[in-house]
Amino acid sequence: MTVTDHAPLNGVDTPTLFATVDAVREQPELARFQFRTTTEWLSGTHNRTRIAGFHGAGGEQHRDQEFTVDADHPTVLVGADQAPTPAEHLLQALGACLTSGLANIAAARGISLGAVTARVEGDIDVRGLLGIDDDVRNGFESIRVVFHVAGDAEAEQLRRLVGRAAARSTVLDVVTGGVPVSIDVATS
Amino acid sequence: MTVTDHAPLNGVDTPTLFATVDAVREQPELARFQFRTTTEWLSGTHNRTRIAGFHGAGGEQHRDQEFTVDADHPTVLVGADQAPTPAEHLLQALGACLTSGLANIAAARGISLGAVTARVEGDIDVRGLLGIDDDVRNGFESIRVVFHVAGDAEAEQLRRLVGRAAARSTVLDVVTGGVPVSIDVATS
Repeated sequence: MTVTDHAPLNGVDTPTLFATVDAVREQPELARFQFRTTTEWLSGTHNRTRIAGFHGAGGEQHRDQEFTVDADHPTVLVGADQAPTPAEHLLQALGACLTSGLANIAAARGISLGAVTARVEGDIDVRGLLGIDDDVRNGFESIRVVFHVAGDAEAEQLRRLVGRAAARSTVLDVVTGGVPVSIDVATS
Repeated sequence: MTVTDHAPLNGVDTPTLFATVDAVREQPELARFQFRTTTEWLSGTHNRTRIAGFHGAGGEQHRDQEFTVDADHPTVLVGADQAPTPAEHLLQALGACLTSGLANIAAARGISLGAVTARVEGDIDVRGLLGIDDDVRNGFESIRVVFHVAGDAEAEQLRRLVGRAAARSTVLDVVTGGVPVSIDVATS
């Protein structure tokens, strides 16, 4: 399989995607990435995260724009409902990761996509996070993803796109497998 | 500890927060929540998630507004860089969850907060997600959170706020411990 086998498709620059994979395969040090976010407390449960530069592809990467994302709790959980909850942000990160991967994989396989949606549902018993019952976990008990995929391929091929996206998803890996997290505090 | 011990603080309606905890303690069925997000593919790795209603506190909850959150890959990963990556959304969800919890806990303890920030860094080797090396995981290898907390309390008390926020964080629980995820596909 070579770069010239593939034309851009689904808005994916497939030749560049294949060239990137080849470049990283030959220079594994290009594969070291570090992503960063900085959350600033605003008021109550409302906060705002800035997302800009990151490290990767052999150096520090700058973006033309800085992104901001807000989070808050809903009123029934005593927030001001100014933004999605952090728990919803976790779910959207999962849906987004699977969807981005699916589009890349479809392009690599020459499958033209139609409408694609991923609905993500997470069940949680908030007695954990409210500190009412130590036997209830703070996080989601279970998460379900339901994809609707239309595209120029047999149903089985479209299903396999989702399977491959899941097999290569960063966020699904973290959400199902867990990652060590260290937390440090500076005070003033 | 009763509701009347606590006045609103840090933008947190502390009396209502305590009343909510008491209500859920007495009626555990109020604690069943389901959060939902729906991601729509736009083009390439760019997609958009809508976040609106959820189930909780004994019924279906509607919001006055629907939230939308975009995700994309950066150009060095062959995206259009229209929005944060899904991996960065995972990190911001973690920073936001810890920060929201910290503000609630500070209010409950009568500690007035100054500036609070949480920087989150995640290290990842993208050979996993690119399908180059099956021995490399798709997700982050490790995540670090660095809090800066200013407030009207001793440094040790401020550090304990972070510790308690971590001990009750939904997103930290998921990110460190993992959750079962099911994925279904409908095609057309």
